[in-house]
Amino acid sequence: MINAAVFGAGRIGKVHTHNAAGLPGVALRYVVDVNPAAASELAGTYGAKPATIEAALGDPEVHAVVIATSTDTHADLIQQAAAAGKAIFCEKPVDLALERARVCAEAVTRAGVLCGIGFQRRFDPTFAALKTRLDAGEIGEPETLLITSRDPGPPPVSYIKVSGGIYKDMLIHDFDIFRWILEDEAISIHATGSCLVDPAIGEAVTIRTRKGRLCQINTTRRAAYGYDQRFEVLGSAGMLQAGNPRPTEVTASTKRSVSTDIPEPLFFDRYRVAFAAEMKYFFDAVGSGKSARTDIHDGVKALELAEAATLSWHEQRVVELDV
Amino acid sequence: MINAAVFGAGRIGKVHTHNAAGLPGVALRYVVDVNPAAASELAGTYGAKPATIEAALGDPEVHAVVIATSTDTHADLIQQAAAAGKAIFCEKPVDLALERARVCAEAVTRAGVLCGIGFQRRFDPTFAALKTRLDAGEIGEPETLLITSRDPGPPPVSYIKVSGGIYKDMLIHDFDIFRWILEDEAISIHATGSCLVDPAIGEAVTIRTRKGRLCQINTTRRAAYGYDQRFEVLGSAGMLQAGNPRPTEVTASTKRSVSTDIPEPLFFDRYRVAFAAEMKYFFDAVGSGKSARTDIHDGVKALELAEAATLSWHEQRVVELDV
Amino acid sequence: MINAAVFGAGRIGKVHTHNAAGLPGVALRYVVDVNPAAASELAGTYGAKPATIEAALGDPEVHAVVIATSTDTHADLIQQAAAAGKAIFCEKPVDLALERARVCAEAVTRAGVLCGIGFQRRFDPTFAALKTRLDAGEIGEPETLLITSRDPGPPPVSYIKVSGGIYKDMLIHDFDIFRWILEDEAISIHATGSCLVDPAIGEAVTIRTRKGRLCQINTTRRAAYGYDQRFEVLGSAGMLQAGNPRPTEVTASTKRSVSTDIPEPLFFDRYRVAFAAEMKYFFDAVGSGKSARTDIHDGVKALELAEAATLSWHEQRVVELDV
Amino acid sequence: MINAAVFGAGRIGKVHTHNAAGLPGVALRYVVDVNPAAASELAGTYGAKPATIEAALGDPEVHAVVIATSTDTHADLIQQAAAAGKAIFCEKPVDLALERARVCAEAVTRAGVLCGIGFQRRFDPTFAALKTRLDAGEIGEPETLLITSRDPGPPPVSYIKVSGGIYKDMLIHDFDIFRWILEDEAISIHATGSCLVDPAIGEAVTIRTRKGRLCQINTTRRAAYGYDQRFEVLGSAGMLQAGNPRPTEVTASTKRSVSTDIPEPLFFDRYRVAFAAEMKYFFDAVGSGKSARTDIHDGVKALELAEAATLSWHEQRVVELDV
Repeated sequence: MINAAVFGAGRIGKVHTHNAAGLPGVALRYVVDVNPAAASELAGTYGAKPATIEAALGDPEVHAVVIATSTDTHADLIQQAAAAGKAIFCEKPVDLALERARVCAEAVTRAGVLCGIGFQRRFDPTFAALKTRLDAGEIGEPETLLITSRDPGPPPVSYIKVSGGIYKDMLIHDFDIFRWILEDEAISIHATGSCLVDPAIGEAVTIRTRKGRLCQINTTRRAAYGYDQRFEVLGSAGMLQAGNPRPTEVTASTKRSVSTDIPEPLFFDRYRVAFAAEMKYFFDAVGSGKSARTDIHDGVKALELAEAATLSWHEQRVVELDV
Repeated sequence: MINAAVFGAGRIGKVHTHNAAGLPGVALRYVVDVNPAAASELAGTYGAKPATIEAALGDPEVHAVVIATSTDTHADLIQQAAAAGKAIFCEKPVDLALERARVCAEAVTRAGVLCGIGFQRRFDPTFAALKTRLDAGEIGEPETLLITSRDPGPPPVSYIKVSGGIYKDMLIHDFDIFRWILEDEAISIHATGSCLVDPAIGEAVTIRTRKGRLCQINTTRRAAYGYDQRFEVLGSAGMLQAGNPRPTEVTASTKRSVSTDIPEPLFFDRYRVAFAAEMKYFFDAVGSGKSARTDIHDGVKALELAEAATLSWHEQRVVELDV
Repeated sequence: MINAAVFGAGRIGKVHTHNAAGLPGVALRYVVDVNPAAASELAGTYGAKPATIEAALGDPEVHAVVIATSTDTHADLIQQAAAAGKAIFCEKPVDLALERARVCAEAVTRAGVLCGIGFQRRFDPTFAALKTRLDAGEIGEPETLLITSRDPGPPPVSYIKVSGGIYKDMLIHDFDIFRWILEDEAISIHATGSCLVDPAIGEAVTIRTRKGRLCQINTTRRAAYGYDQRFEVLGSAGMLQAGNPRPTEVTASTKRSVSTDIPEPLFFDRYRVAFAAEMKYFFDAVGSGKSARTDIHDGVKALELAEAATLSWHEQRVVELDV
Repeated sequence: MINAAVFGAGRIGKVHTHNAAGLPGVALRYVVDVNPAAASELAGTYGAKPATIEAALGDPEVHAVVIATSTDTHADLIQQAAAAGKAIFCEKPVDLALERARVCAEAVTRAGVLCGIGFQRRFDPTFAALKTRLDAGEIGEPETLLITSRDPGPPPVSYIKVSGGIYKDMLIHDFDIFRWILEDEAISIHATGSCLVDPAIGEAVTIRTRKGRLCQINTTRRAAYGYDQRFEVLGSAGMLQAGNPRPTEVTASTKRSVSTDIPEPLFFDRYRVAFAAEMKYFFDAVGSGKSARTDIHDGVKALELAEAATLSWHEQRVVELDV
């Protein structure tokens, strides 16, 4: 039995808690939150106890922690949990400051603990199936990756203000997808668009890779028709496209049009299956000793791209990356 | 050079004339119509002359005739043209009376002339491609055929009154599709529905075949969303479906739905390519001596099914067919 | 808290147990099975106890029972549970004999207990959404219903032998869909096909309704490409189609074709969401007093259609139904 | 009757000749080619005569010329035809040198003649329908345009060498699409990729516009699965996507996949309808005095973008455009 503690009883904390608590072989022991009432309530629902950070990390029978607190607390918690020898799952991003994220990565490496980062898209059934088929050589050598990453509406202004901008907040997922799908690193990046922090027309990013490939990303915070998160890989022998899941498979034909459902309008519905698979994978890894699908170094790498994109955007020029 | 005469300067006569006149190696010599002005006008547009039936059939240099007159004149014209030794293309149906259609077929056989019947669906690119792939064994042995055959609106009442009812007028196309696709004959037929002559809820037909296969046809004269003429074949190793062509490939995603075009709303647009291919095939056959894709015996067979369906409908029972 | 007992620890019993056990407000108290080891194991997994029928029904604190045993035991268990005043969820069919099913329905009515029947398709997200939109008038008045109901492979011969034939075993689902979607009753039925008990080419059923509508059903026990369970409703103002869900939204374009996933190949994957929703709906109904979405009278009605279809098949004729 | 001369009897010349000759109200009088035999043959097929440039332009009864010769001759012919007062249709590009193209535009303006440039994509039914719906406000204000422009295989090396590189040869179509769809002008352009003249991994272009919009273009000369020329416009109220037409609407479901046709594999099939519509539009304009859908100034503008993209590629930097 793997004993677990969850840090953070907010929206994403509840999702992870629900998914972790339902796993065979996992016992949820503690929920920690700055708001004790929230911790108590969430803990109670799943037969766990509220606790302080110190109590949770100090319990030698806790094997694994799930960090789902606000971004500014990630780095401290990762370092403390690593020092305590716990397996760690931490929501993205590791930190908004690249230097601090690197310090975390070193702490994790030094402690030799498992540390998975919450890029849940790698666990989306469609995205994961595409990756498997790409790796199997179905379309030959990948050459170009196009990512469409659109949210249906902007987050609250209060969130945007501390989010580090659209590249660190939203596109960081796409930077991770880019590295995961192509298994390649950026040598240059060009980012342009309307605005970093406001909901606006959107951003366009172009990445060139070591192996001479191209990646184009387009994004916006307001797609009228729902979460639109697709990508396509053009390879030497064909193309693989990952489309959006739809709530239902109803088609309506009327005088005006033939129509189907829009993509899932809510983030947690869009990635419901991915979040569950992500938690399962993490605890399987804790139990079996296998490595994380996205580790803290991936988290640092995605942040490097987000920083470079931000720089490119500010200086309106192509930014070269050290490789 | 093949010299041709067209009989009938109405809607379908114009389509055939246009298509025939554009074929290399075909010279349109005469247009015949009960309305001399219509004949003159259509003939003039394509550099031909108006003529009487006798003149057109009496010209020894006319090799082929296209019969696109009203249904009640088909039988006489076929017999006269056969007697004159002309290659014949005749619009469906051969006649509304089975006995008279059989007499025509005998006349054609006796004369030894080519006689193609206007079941243009066999020339639809999608339908023809499906047939080719089915014959190539792509889905193994065919087992079940489902045909959806819906018109967007009823023809004029004046037409319906003399059309012989929905089975002879509209479903006769589907009876031909059934025989063409399955290369099999009906042993029993069951037809039921709301009404034979009025635009109504529709009809449902079930056919069992010699080889133990099944065919279901559903039809209506008023599909709000356009011409809907699809079919699907289930075989031992898979399924082939023939869908509707769409005017354009535009997809619109809005707050409400993801939508595409409705099928072509007009009959002549729906089968524009098929009509052209049908005429080309006929004149190629005239020139090369190859046989028609749908000959007069197919025309008779489709009519037999239409008669049996009509009987089944009237007596509300399963009708066995002689085989 | 609603206390529940599950009867039957086989394949479908496990699915219902898992879904019921995960519901807030539901406590699984007993699992009953002719095989005590199976009952113990399943009970143990979810913190319940194995028990005899008598013990489970005799416990006054048990409010609801889920019957997932073999078909021949359904009728007895329904009657005993009704007599004991329990709310009942029973897998389809109620019984293979219509008379016995009617006796059950009377027992349930007399006892005044809730009794839901396991036609899980009514809970499929796509099917349920179509029904909601149809009821909202999106396509006007429904006129024709076409149902495609294909399994990827036949069940074991041992099962087929006691299943009552394809109409009672498999098409009973479609007869329920027909009544649910059209909210209408059959006045005549015609069924034809290759064979009632062997995996074979398939069956074709045509139903006429009181309101003059038509329903065509086609079925087979071996669709090479997976579970294919679609339907479409043609209405006076358009068409609604319910398609198959797909495992992923990957599209591959190669030299040969543009391809997507086949439908779910396994029954429990195809209806995973529907089974969970069905159990939730039942226990919500137990708690709130609302009625079942499919009650025992629906179960009897579907069986009447299955019997009439079987008769039609045997006598190769149209069968009229009392209305 | 409009009398026309065609210059160039090569591949595209034949297409234009065929389409022009079939138009009511158009009389093809001359075909001109450096190869007299080719001119004679093409002229003969359509009842015209071979002629020299001087003879064709010197005939005062010739109202319109279609220029389909090799790129290096376009500029001279445009200027001569303009001086002779003929209406002009010229294949893209106007010239490979921007300065020379501008001189042509001035000559055309001075002469006051109609001059359409052969960006046939504006006449593709799907692309044109999208434009109409966008203009009608269906998705609000356009914000982002994504263009996928892929050929199935590279042209002959001999062609590539004189083509001016992928931006002037192939992407010039997309630069025109960009301006047509957004009705906006570029203020900066960034182009990167593998190689300008060899068939290679491809190119990625990003454009920012005066109105603050974004356009991303991706291209390759070798898409294994056929001509893939799509685009999508994200607007404030939704998205419009223009997909590829397919040869047929056959869908095959087998054990492995559900598959449809690949896009048209041949350029002239992909744009068959567009080429015909383009010619019809031109001669309608000649007859009615309406303006060209794409005039010589559009040709110059597209070339400006191609030059800027080439510069950006060479210097690996963002290039600002005068506006």
